[in-house]
This record gives sequence, C-alpha cells and structure tokens, in this order.
Amino acid sequence: MTIAVHTAMRDAIALAARAQGLTSPNPVVGCVVLDAAGERAGEGYHAFAGASHAEAAALEQAGDRARGGTVVVTLEPCDHHGRTGPCTQAILDAGVRRVVYAVTDPSERARGGARRLAEAGVEVESGVLAAEAERLNAEWLTYARLRRPHVTWKFAATLDGRSAAADGTSQWITGAAAREDVHRLRARCDAIIAGSGTVLADDPRLTVRGFEPHDHLITHRRPLRVIADARARTPLGSRVLDDAAPTLIAVSEETIGDTGEQDAAALAARTAVVRLPRAAGKGGVDLHALMAELAEREIVSVLLEGGPTLAGAFLADGLVDRVVAYLAPTLFGAGPAALRDAGVTTLAEAYHLDIEDITTIGPDLRITAAVREQASGARADALTAPSRREH
Amino acid sequence: MTIAVHTAMRDAIALAARAQGLTSPNPVVGCVVLDAAGERAGEGYHAFAGASHAEAAALEQAGDRARGGTVVVTLEPCDHHGRTGPCTQAILDAGVRRVVYAVTDPSERARGGARRLAEAGVEVESGVLAAEAERLNAEWLTYARLRRPHVTWKFAATLDGRSAAADGTSQWITGAAAREDVHRLRARCDAIIAGSGTVLADDPRLTVRGFEPHDHLITHRRPLRVIADARARTPLGSRVLDDAAPTLIAVSEETIGDTGEQDAAALAARTAVVRLPRAAGKGGVDLHALMAELAEREIVSVLLEGGPTLAGAFLADGLVDRVVAYLAPTLFGAGPAALRDAGVTTLAEAYHLDIEDITTIGPDLRITAAVREQASGARADALTAPSRREH
Repeated sequence: MTIAVHTAMRDAIALAARAQGLTSPNPVVGCVVLDAAGERAGEGYHAFAGASHAEAAALEQAGDRARGGTVVVTLEPCDHHGRTGPCTQAILDAGVRRVVYAVTDPSERARGGARRLAEAGVEVESGVLAAEAERLNAEWLTYARLRRPHVTWKFAATLDGRSAAADGTSQWITGAAAREDVHRLRARCDAIIAGSGTVLADDPRLTVRGFEPHDHLITHRRPLRVIADARARTPLGSRVLDDAAPTLIAVSEETIGDTGEQDAAALAARTAVVRLPRAAGKGGVDLHALMAELAEREIVSVLLEGGPTLAGAFLADGLVDRVVAYLAPTLFGAGPAALRDAGVTTLAEAYHLDIEDITTIGPDLRITAAVREQASGARADALTAPSRREH
Repeated sequence: MTIAVHTAMRDAIALAARAQGLTSPNPVVGCVVLDAAGERAGEGYHAFAGASHAEAAALEQAGDRARGGTVVVTLEPCDHHGRTGPCTQAILDAGVRRVVYAVTDPSERARGGARRLAEAGVEVESGVLAAEAERLNAEWLTYARLRRPHVTWKFAATLDGRSAAADGTSQWITGAAAREDVHRLRARCDAIIAGSGTVLADDPRLTVRGFEPHDHLITHRRPLRVIADARARTPLGSRVLDDAAPTLIAVSEETIGDTGEQDAAALAARTAVVRLPRAAGKGGVDLHALMAELAEREIVSVLLEGGPTLAGAFLADGLVDRVVAYLAPTLFGAGPAALRDAGVTTLAEAYHLDIEDITTIGPDLRITAAVREQASGARADALTAPSRREH
C-alpha cells in the first residue's frame, strides 16, 4: 500500500465521520478517488439515508480522472439496488483500476461487492485502517452483524459509584455541561430506552433538547422513546406520552391481569404498543425480543438510560456494546449504586471494558468504553478466584 | 516581576519536586539565585531532613555573585536555628538585595523570615507562582497549618464503584501496573493506615515493595504502619506485626474487657501500642486524637488504605485531603461499595473534589483529586434538594 492510499483512507474516514449519527439505518461511508497518477481527483461521503453513496459522490467529482485510478473507501462497495444503484456498477462504469476498502460489508443485501469487482478484473484490497473504520461504524456494524441495535448504556454517578444519595436525591449529580452532552448522545441515537420504574420515579421526557444547534440534521432528529414496561404501568399522563417524539411501549404478551389489560389497551390508544414475551424467570420483557423488534423497525443504535436494574438486565443478556459513564468529582458513601443485578457474583465473571476515550466535561469526567465480547457462558463457568488480597 | 524571576521560580519548583516524599518532616524547597545582572548564579534544593536548606545550597553555589542579587525560593526563608542555621542569616550574610518567595511558611518555628529580612533592608516579594508551590507542598502545608498529617485516601474499584465482587473476591480488581503504583504512593508517605477489619479480612503487609528502585531514598523508606484497632483485635500472627516496617496499633483507652486488655498487653509486647479515646457514639478510636498522635511523631503524610467504613469515618471527620481512585475498566453490578457511612444522606451534603490529575495506568484509570474544604456543619445544615430528576 502506498502512502497516498493510506493518507486517502485516513481522509475517507474523516469524511465519513462528518455524517456520524445521521445516516441510520445506513452506515457512514467516506470515499476518496485517486487518478491514475495517484493524485486526488474526488471525494465524497454518505450524508443521510437516501442521499448519494460515498463512492458515487466521489466518482462524480472525479469524472474522467477516475479512469485507471483508485477508489479508496471505508466500507466494501455495495452490490445492491437500493434507493440508489449499486456502487460496484458505478465503479466499473468509471473504468477504475483498483479498489481499496477498510471493512467488509457484513449485511446480506450489500455484500459480495468485492467479489463482483474482482470478477470484473478490478484489483481489490481490503483491511486498510480497518480498526479505525470499524470504530467509526460500530453502531451499524453491530446492527448488520448481529441483527439487533447497538446499545450504549449511559450512566451518571459519583466517584464512588452512586447514582443518587441515600434519600433518593439525584438532581444533579453531574454538572450542566455533562447533562448537555447527554443530549448530544441522544441526538446521535435512533432510540432511547428506559424502564417503567424510571418513568414512574422521575417522569423523564427522554427527548433531545437543551443544546445549541450545531447541525440542523442532529437537532431535528427525534429518537424513538422506548419504555420496557411488562406490566403496562406507564401512567397516561407521563411526559414520554407527549407529542415531542414518537414512543413505543413494550408490554408483556402474557396475561397481565384485568387491570393490566385495560392499562395496555389505554396505552395502545395513545401510542405504539408492542407485546413481547417475558424474560425467563424474570419480571421484565425479554430484551432479546425487544432488540429484534427494534431491528425490524430499522433502529440501528440505542441509548439505554434506564435505572440500575434495567442496565443490569441488558448487561446480563450480553446486550450492552458501549458504556458512557459520567463521573462527578463527588463522594456520597451511601445511596443506590449505578448498576445492579448484572449476573456477576465473583470477580472472574466481571464485565471487561476497553476504554476508548476519557474527557473532562465541565467539572465531570466522561469515560467511553467498549464492552469486551465474552466467551458464551463465561460468567456461569467462571472459576472462583482467590478471595484473599495481597496488600 | 521580571521574566527572569518568573522563570527562576518555575525552575525552583522543579528543583524542589526532585525531593518530593523524601524531606519529611520538612517541606520540599527549591531555590535559584540570580546575580545583580539577573543571570543564574546558583541553585539548590532541600534533599532530606538534616541536609542543607535550599537557600544555603544555592547561595553556596553562587558565592560572591549573590551580592546585590535575588534569591528566588519556593517557601518563605526560615528564621530558625534548627539542624542547620537560619536561612535569613545566610541571605543577609551573602549581601542579597531582594528575596522573592512563593508561599508563606505557616509553621511557628520558622515563620517571620520575611519580616526579619525586610527589617534588615532586603526587598521582599511573595506569592509568585503560589498555587503551584502550594500543590508541591500540600502534605507539609497541611501538617504545618492544621497540626495533623495530610491524609490521602486511596481506593481501587470497578467503574461502578465496587471494591469487591458479591462473594468477596477482590484479587485483583486493578492490574499489576496500578498495584505497583500504589507502592509508589506508599513510599512517598510517612505512614499507612488501615483498620483492624482489613487486617482480619486480608492480612495485608502494608509495606513498600514490588517496584524497580528508581531512587534509593524512596526504596529505603519504611513508612509506619498504623492500625486503627479500638478493641485490640489485631492477631499476633498478622503480617503487619512482622519486622518489615515499624507498626503502631491504636487501641481504645477505655476499658475494652478482660480479653481486650490481655490482647492489648500482648500487642504492646510485640509493637508500639497507643491508647486513644473512642469516637463519640462510634465504635472506633477518635480519629482526630489519632491524627494528633501521629503529628506528635512527626508524621507529615498518611496514606489511608482502610476499608469503606474507615474511609467513611475519615471523610465524615473532615480528615481526608486527597483522594486517589484506581478505577478498573470493569463492571460488577454487585458487591461492597468502595465507600460507606461518610455522613452524607442527601445530595447537597456530598463531598466535592477538585480533580488534579487523570492518568491511565495499564488498563486502569487513576484519578487524583483534592477534597474541597467544606463550611463547618455543611452536611448537618444542608437543604433538602429536589428529588425529582429532569431527564
């Protein structure tokens, strides 16, 4: 790989990043076209679903200069007739000699693009800056590979891990800047999930608001509000039922008692309600079923804002991909913990994270980390670690 | 203030920092001497108790060039006959025209140096880079101002604030690099405190070991091990009673029962034992009395490594000055919290910290923060904050 191609891929990644959070249910993609002499001839990115694909935009800019040149793109070109034509065809039509891409497209509909190009005589190389390109598309790749939304669990806590004081006060643990930052997280997700316990306790809005409009696309996004509410307890007067954003209530499909049935019917008259199985041995709805339901609705990314118990259930089900922790520089020494009942009883069963970013936001600390994949059954089979400390 | 003096003070602070953790019970001090033309003529720092004072070392290096020049020093020069002569006299003898210092010496024995110099006709200026110089001497300034040791509370926890898993396993929450770093913290303190609960549960050594000898002074330091043990429960076979370092057991001075008396006597036959009053309404020894006892023994800095309850008691008594949190990138969702019973019941009573440093140490995160001073009774008088969150 030449330096020119490496630099072009870095630029393609930066181009793709411009549309992060805006392309759902599509991936973000950036593309740079080099002419036969290796000079920059065109560039483009996929701005939103329905807009040109990155390759098409870059090839259009390059025009005739693309002939005999190189297409450098962050994701394997699609071979699929969607809202726009297949990129493979555009590449072949342009007479491109070589295609370099970072990450293979795992989706059924679009993959096979590399093979199609190779069969047509185009030189194809993959894996260039793959790790960076993966990170950029973490949400969409999770969605495409696992057929469920990518889940980011956000929590705010003190440095000693408390999400409220002993008397329940929690307004505010973190500062205004951190709270504003949460609205940025919300704006980049397709859905925001909370449990009915949080609705009953706090009556949250779960909308995007309260920060300067840097980007009209982001500020106009209204992520779906999803309430995990097996027993249909969401009060009809709740703020999540206002018209500020769409809302989906996930209730149990099993008999939930006469009152429960009435409540579910009343909710269904107000907003979208979906009936889902209950989780085995637990009170809540089956979270895998909920994720499948959301994937059906083309929800690529979810921000989990539920309380400690809902977060524990998501973790225990292997459904948390990323954690964003806002830690306030305060200590309580009492009060509810930020996370509960995640299925860990001994140290060897702990969830391991890879820290991706640490930033101070006002007086607070924001830690972003990816949840490491765990061998199936790791927690159940875990060995008992020695309990004696060596100080 | 000239640029030359500002630069000299910055250098003096860097010189002082070389001896950080090594000068107890003295402060760290750095000094730069400029000649009459403003050129660097000498520099020095206080290396350890009994060694030359920084001013004396710098003046000796400057020799005749100090005449008519400027002494730039991080702490007000002493006017006190200690193990070495008073620095004021050395400055006057050298014919220095001007003295610039950063921080006023708060100690009874040494202060008044600036007045003595001014009365003798020397031009005196103070407060230059005072914040940096304060931070450098945080331990000693706390000791000198409050007549008690400076206390650093160190804890290790998961990102959700757990110091052990539900079954008690805690070996290891943090990685090898973080554990090695703790030994560096220990080496820079005069004493390490734990409670008898920790001794009974973990049988810790509480010694400095396990890292490469970067500095022979540090690796040869053996901080005093202090066990808060009101009921004289420390077993005679405990590792803290070995001869790897001196140990002081603080037991209750009140009647502790026949067995307790026998246990205290047996401990006293093995190591130093001090009898202290009990804390009002609590089971443990009075921590203010313990701090006064340690100050008597010229203990300037303490590393608190006790469990969550002892840490809570120190915080509640206003005796924690700095927090060093080692956060592992893991989640438990169950298990004991890192901090307990610190006297906070509502959000407005929280302890506030000022983050001074955030560093990744291997896979872990180390957060160093100063505990903000709180108005007396703030916790008792705190208003009840609204308990409803605005999401």
